[in-house]
Amino acid sequence: MDEITIHSIREAAGRIAPLARRTPVWRSRSFDERAGCQAFFKCENLQKGGAFKIRGAANFIFSIPEQDRPRGVVAWSSGNHAQAVAIAARHLGIPATLVMPADAPRSKMEATRAQGARIVLYDRLRESREEIGRRISKETGATLVPPFDHPWIIAGQGACALEFLEQQPDLDALVVCLGGGGLLAGCAIAARSLRPAIRIYGVEPEIANDYWLSLRRGEPVEIAPPSTIADGLRTTKPGRWNFPIIQRLVDEVLLVSEDEIREAARFILTRMKLVVEPSGAVAAAAALAGRLPQRFARVGIVLSGGNVDLETLAGL
Amino acid sequence: MDEITIHSIREAAGRIAPLARRTPVWRSRSFDERAGCQAFFKCENLQKGGAFKIRGAANFIFSIPEQDRPRGVVAWSSGNHAQAVAIAARHLGIPATLVMPADAPRSKMEATRAQGARIVLYDRLRESREEIGRRISKETGATLVPPFDHPWIIAGQGACALEFLEQQPDLDALVVCLGGGGLLAGCAIAARSLRPAIRIYGVEPEIANDYWLSLRRGEPVEIAPPSTIADGLRTTKPGRWNFPIIQRLVDEVLLVSEDEIREAARFILTRMKLVVEPSGAVAAAAALAGRLPQRFARVGIVLSGGNVDLETLAGL
Repeated sequence: MDEITIHSIREAAGRIAPLARRTPVWRSRSFDERAGCQAFFKCENLQKGGAFKIRGAANFIFSIPEQDRPRGVVAWSSGNHAQAVAIAARHLGIPATLVMPADAPRSKMEATRAQGARIVLYDRLRESREEIGRRISKETGATLVPPFDHPWIIAGQGACALEFLEQQPDLDALVVCLGGGGLLAGCAIAARSLRPAIRIYGVEPEIANDYWLSLRRGEPVEIAPPSTIADGLRTTKPGRWNFPIIQRLVDEVLLVSEDEIREAARFILTRMKLVVEPSGAVAAAAALAGRLPQRFARVGIVLSGGNVDLETLAGL
Repeated sequence: MDEITIHSIREAAGRIAPLARRTPVWRSRSFDERAGCQAFFKCENLQKGGAFKIRGAANFIFSIPEQDRPRGVVAWSSGNHAQAVAIAARHLGIPATLVMPADAPRSKMEATRAQGARIVLYDRLRESREEIGRRISKETGATLVPPFDHPWIIAGQGACALEFLEQQPDLDALVVCLGGGGLLAGCAIAARSLRPAIRIYGVEPEIANDYWLSLRRGEPVEIAPPSTIADGLRTTKPGRWNFPIIQRLVDEVLLVSEDEIREAARFILTRMKLVVEPSGAVAAAAALAGRLPQRFARVGIVLSGGNVDLETLAGL
C-alpha cells in the first residue's frame, strides 16, 4: 500500500461506487464572464453527505479487514469527514464514534448524529482530538479513520479528479482547495497521470497557509490553529503522506483572503444558485479573484462541499 | 391573439430562445424518500434573471411592433418580473422603467438596476402600482408589460412546461406555484395539450388564496394584500385572461402554510443544495407536506425562482 497510483485510485473508485455519487459538472456564464475563462465546476457539494469526504472515508472503511469491522471505527473531524465516516460505517452496519469540536457547524453535527453515530465533543483550542480518538480506539478496538493522512483516504479522494477528467477531459488547469491535503494529493495523482500537462493548483486561506509555508521551507511546518471562515481547512500541518505527493505533483499553492472566500461563496449562492460552504468556495475564490498565475481556456474547479448553516450564509 | 394554444406557446418558445435558457431538470434522492414519489424539478431558479419570468417578459417585449419599441417599456413588479423586463428590454436596446414596492427584496432591486433600468419606488400598502405604471405609460408612450394578465405573457410562461415535458415526457402530475396565474395558465395549456391525462395542480400560500377562493366562487375574487413569505405570490386577484384558463384546465388549487413553505425552502437549500426563493419553493412544499390529493409515481415540480436575499435565507 506504499505507493498511491492511478491504479489505486481506479480501484478505490470501483470500491466506493455503491455509496459515492458521480457528481455533475456545472457551468455558469456569469462566473465565466467574471473570471475570464471557461470554468467547469465539479459539484462535490451534491455528493452523498454533502462533500467529497465520502470518497476517502468509504474507501478506507470498505478496506478494513472483515475481522476488524465489528469493533467499529472512530474518527475526528470538524464535520464533513465525521459525516462521511458515519455514512460509510452505517452502510456496512458497524458502529462509529466521532470526535468533533464543540464549535463545529450545527448542521454538520446534526447530520452526523442522524446517521446513528456516537459523538464525543472536545474543545478545539485546549484538547487534542487525536489523543481522544486514539484513546477511544485503544479502549474499544475501533479502527481509526484518519481525515486525510493515509493512502486509502488519498486514493478515495483521487476518484473525484478521475471522474472529473472523464466528464471533462480537456481541462487546462485543475484547482482544488487545500486543508490536510487528502483531496489535493489524490486529485493530483489522478490528474497528472491522465493528463500530464495539466496545471494543478491547491488553494489555501491566507490565514491557514500551512502548506504554502511548508512548500517554501521544503518540509512540513506547523501553524497555530487558524480561525478561517473555511472551517473545513483549519488543519495546522500537512499530512506526512500528503506533503511529498503535493510537493512533487502540484504546480503551486495559491492563497486567498477571507474576503475573497466570502465573495466567491456569495457569488456561487446568489448568481449560480448553488449552496456551497465557505471551504467549498475556496478553489473558486482563486479563479474569481484572479489568483491563477496565468490565463487558461478551460479551468476545472472542485466545489468541495455544501454543508453550511443558514446562519453562516446570512453572515456572507 | 385571443386564444392561447400549444401553437402560440411553441412560437413563443422559438421567439425567446435567444434569451431564455433551457433550464435543467433536477433529481433528489432525499426529496423522493421524503415525498414518496419520483420528483423531477424544473430549475427555473437557474433561468436567466433567476426566475421563469424572463419567458413571458421576453415573449411580450419581442412581440411589440417595431415602431413602438423606441418609446420603451414600463412594468410594475415585486421583483422577478421587473428584472425580466429589464433584461429583455436591454437585449433589444430599448429603455425600461420599473415600478417596484419600496419593500421589495434588495437583491431583486439591485439586479434590476444593474440591467440599466430606471426604478420608481412606491408604497405597497398605500399607492397603486397600476396607476403609477399607467401614468408613466401615458406620459412617455412606453408600452406597459403586464406581469401576468396577457396572452403574450401566458404563452411565454407556457414554454416552461413545453420544455419540461420534452425533457421528462412521462410525468403523471405537474405542480406549479400560483400568484397571478401566468406561469400556471401557460403551463396548463402546454401540459394539457402534450399529455392530456396529466394532473395539473396550482399551489398557493394559505394566506394568499385568491385563486382558491375564486374557483370555489366561480368568479374572480379580490383579497387584501397578503403578507406571505412567498413575496412573488402576493397578488390580490386572478388575472382576467388567466382565471378561465386555470378554471378549465387545472385539476385543483392546493394550499400550503407559511411553515410548509419555509420547510420546503430549507429542505431544497440544505439537502438539495439549490438556492431557491420562498415563492420558488411553494410547489415543492405541496409535495413535501403531502398535500397532493393522490399518490403519483412521477411528479414534475417547477422551482420557479432563486432570487433571495441572504438575510431571508437566514430567516428560514
